[in-house]
Amino acid sequence: MNKKGITTREEDYSKWYLDIVDQADLAENSSVRGAMVIKPHGYAIWENIQKTLDGKIKEHGVVNTYFPLLIPKSFLSREASHVKGFAKECAIVTHHRLIDDGKGGVVVDPDSKLEEELVIRPTSETVMYDTFSRWITSWRDLPLQINQWANVMRWEMRTRPFLRTSEFLWQEGHTVHETKEEAVEEVLWALNMYKSFAEEYLAMPVIAGKKSQMEKFAGADDTYGVEALMQDGKALQFGTSHDLGQNFSKAFNILYTDKAGKQQNPWQTSWGVSTRMMGALILVHGDDKGLVLPPKISPIKSVIVPIYSDSEKDKVLQYSEKVANQLESVKLDNRENMSPGAKFNELEKKGIPVRIEIGPRDISKKGVTLVRRDTGEKEFVKVKKVANRVEEILEDIQNNLYNTALTRREDNTHKVSSYDEFKDVIKNKKGFVKAHWCEDPKCEEKIKEDTKATTRCLTEDGVGNKGKCIVCGKECENEWTFAIAY
Amino acid sequence: MNKKGITTREEDYSKWYLDIVDQADLAENSSVRGAMVIKPHGYAIWENIQKTLDGKIKEHGVVNTYFPLLIPKSFLSREASHVKGFAKECAIVTHHRLIDDGKGGVVVDPDSKLEEELVIRPTSETVMYDTFSRWITSWRDLPLQINQWANVMRWEMRTRPFLRTSEFLWQEGHTVHETKEEAVEEVLWALNMYKSFAEEYLAMPVIAGKKSQMEKFAGADDTYGVEALMQDGKALQFGTSHDLGQNFSKAFNILYTDKAGKQQNPWQTSWGVSTRMMGALILVHGDDKGLVLPPKISPIKSVIVPIYSDSEKDKVLQYSEKVANQLESVKLDNRENMSPGAKFNELEKKGIPVRIEIGPRDISKKGVTLVRRDTGEKEFVKVKKVANRVEEILEDIQNNLYNTALTRREDNTHKVSSYDEFKDVIKNKKGFVKAHWCEDPKCEEKIKEDTKATTRCLTEDGVGNKGKCIVCGKECENEWTFAIAY
Repeated sequence: MNKKGITTREEDYSKWYLDIVDQADLAENSSVRGAMVIKPHGYAIWENIQKTLDGKIKEHGVVNTYFPLLIPKSFLSREASHVKGFAKECAIVTHHRLIDDGKGGVVVDPDSKLEEELVIRPTSETVMYDTFSRWITSWRDLPLQINQWANVMRWEMRTRPFLRTSEFLWQEGHTVHETKEEAVEEVLWALNMYKSFAEEYLAMPVIAGKKSQMEKFAGADDTYGVEALMQDGKALQFGTSHDLGQNFSKAFNILYTDKAGKQQNPWQTSWGVSTRMMGALILVHGDDKGLVLPPKISPIKSVIVPIYSDSEKDKVLQYSEKVANQLESVKLDNRENMSPGAKFNELEKKGIPVRIEIGPRDISKKGVTLVRRDTGEKEFVKVKKVANRVEEILEDIQNNLYNTALTRREDNTHKVSSYDEFKDVIKNKKGFVKAHWCEDPKCEEKIKEDTKATTRCLTEDGVGNKGKCIVCGKECENEWTFAIAY
Repeated sequence: MNKKGITTREEDYSKWYLDIVDQADLAENSSVRGAMVIKPHGYAIWENIQKTLDGKIKEHGVVNTYFPLLIPKSFLSREASHVKGFAKECAIVTHHRLIDDGKGGVVVDPDSKLEEELVIRPTSETVMYDTFSRWITSWRDLPLQINQWANVMRWEMRTRPFLRTSEFLWQEGHTVHETKEEAVEEVLWALNMYKSFAEEYLAMPVIAGKKSQMEKFAGADDTYGVEALMQDGKALQFGTSHDLGQNFSKAFNILYTDKAGKQQNPWQTSWGVSTRMMGALILVHGDDKGLVLPPKISPIKSVIVPIYSDSEKDKVLQYSEKVANQLESVKLDNRENMSPGAKFNELEKKGIPVRIEIGPRDISKKGVTLVRRDTGEKEFVKVKKVANRVEEILEDIQNNLYNTALTRREDNTHKVSSYDEFKDVIKNKKGFVKAHWCEDPKCEEKIKEDTKATTRCLTEDGVGNKGKCIVCGKECENEWTFAIAY
């Protein structure tokens, strides 16, 4: 552990992650197993993510709604594979009243048992589609495109803040279409929207493509995902887009009358991203000093730290305020009783892109000292140039973070042509491994058992890239991307 | 019921309310008892409310966070009156897994019983303050001012969309202070923030003041509320601000070291408004044609409806687009297969402030026809004046709605000096009734039993307004405001 209270990545990558979550003031464990408290700095980043994504979703014509938190147990079982996927990790509401236990506490009132148990939504397909069956009657009602920002619950046994928590926050889009083609188009729109958001805002290069049948969403015909490579060579999936086919429209009896007057089951999609993205941000960009935020998603772009002795205080603060007035998204950290060094430390931990130091020496030279978070580089800038220079640096940090992550991913993407080579790479290098696989779940299962690596997705450049399955040697149509995943 | 599918207010005010909720596309019942689906138009209004309030809350220095949905049962019992207030209406999670029932369905796995039951938050004091006890150690950590936007659950037996639902959306602010004075100041800040928001944005005049001890929040020293008068003469409380004293800081062992080095329990506040406000919007401004939205909170301020026969279509649409480009927050409703009349009807139901009709006759006169939602008045305006005129009308609608509601409230606020007069007014006129009450819960209880009217709050002009209690005749310090409430 370094003097900032952060374990280094080399020492223990998992511990480093938890230290960043804690020291950057992002989240902490609560007294409820597996549920975290998202702290102010963490939540402010999430709000920025929300705002940007919400704009992109609405631009596409999708409207926001809110559906109930609790789902009747019987709804879940209507789609056979859906319930299989979620039954094992449901928080179940069975009663609706507490009574005095006579000892100063309360117990569940046995007389308040519900007729039908309710499940806290692990995802909202079933509760929404029950309603959709009433909303949709004609082709005129289609496409139906709705989204909701909500909390969901999956009773995970092993949890880690942001990456895997029993409760998490997310956005879930749900659309209904007349044809399969339209539905697939929507699935790919969402996938690409997530991809471009990650690349442009989170400075995170991602691969995107179809998941294997084993890795798809419970109830989908096909699932597509976006994945990024973390610094430890493991992959993290943080957005999925599902082609639900007619599975749910049949299970929930959603029917529309088409233009020819015939009753049809429509085609559906669902897609979502969650607070898991926050975990990816840390794992891709963080360093041993703390979080490193891409400027486009940072709640504050720069912070001014005034440096003074008592006699210079007024002068330095006045000068600092003048500088602050020239900048956008800046904060003047004028807290008393905290040394500039302690402030530097806090800003580094929180990942604020640019620190602006202003001391008597800067003032005498009519300038300020800029320190960028990603490289730690310092430079002196005249006051009249500060606004432009900060803008340039912010843009440069955004690009630098992206390029660093991209280079890392390229350096850690390996093409292999034999199973021995595959095992060697996974064991010694990790990263993304591109290999031919026949799409038989048996070979996929074997790879997972032998190496812990799983199919991540079939990227565009893998489609139609023929070869021989590294496990069974059969001819195959496509080259898949594998990795050990979070 | 009129031809719009809306029961008139005179016929049946309760049924009218439900018809507006339905016909204005605000919400609908779900298959989950007491939980509603908030539909796109309803949610867009809520988003506007959220955005505005969130800005005011942040301006005050409060930061957003997110705390867990589920609260350990034992947390609730730590503050004795708090648990009494909420125990009867808790949704309780007892298990975490479903298993196959062998008949195509699922049952709760008895082996998945939780060691301690978890309650879906009815409000978050307990789960937050458990965390606060770790966040706060010194006076330097105070004031702590946090807020969260979240869903909460109260297992109500009789529910009505927006007004009383088992699940609802809200904002809950929670602050911690060094002194009682500071805490009370914060309580009043929140109260006034809600009051000015309601008046300025929702065009809804409200009364604000302290609640009686019987009507206060479970666990508070004092509760303050904002209330508005509905068209049927009943009051609706839609925002509360609680002076929690040291009740929770003692129960949760929150301690800070003061400047003199002494350990102290800090003083706390909590305050919130919910989707109940949406119900107030309907009940205050709605009419027999539908919802009437104050422009400042309407998701869209005006909608253009083009009117044409086939041969004029292109010309009318081009002209309409030109007009749309001159306006802010406008939508061109160019849906095919829907008559202008049906569009007018929909816009009236949804309460959109200004409708802009554009037909060949308007075009030939180089203008448009504006129709305002509140009064139904039509006027012809030349194109070059349309932007200014729409702005003027929007401002006028906002003021008109406020003034109409204010006049109605003034006309329906009655001062009484005897209990007979009180009973007569409540029975025959309803409205707000100002009367002297000795603050003895027995008299309050008697009034409630006899008349169903309850103390609403002690407004500023009632404080120190001495007189004799209308029930027991005792001298009293204050004049209270009573009403039959939602």
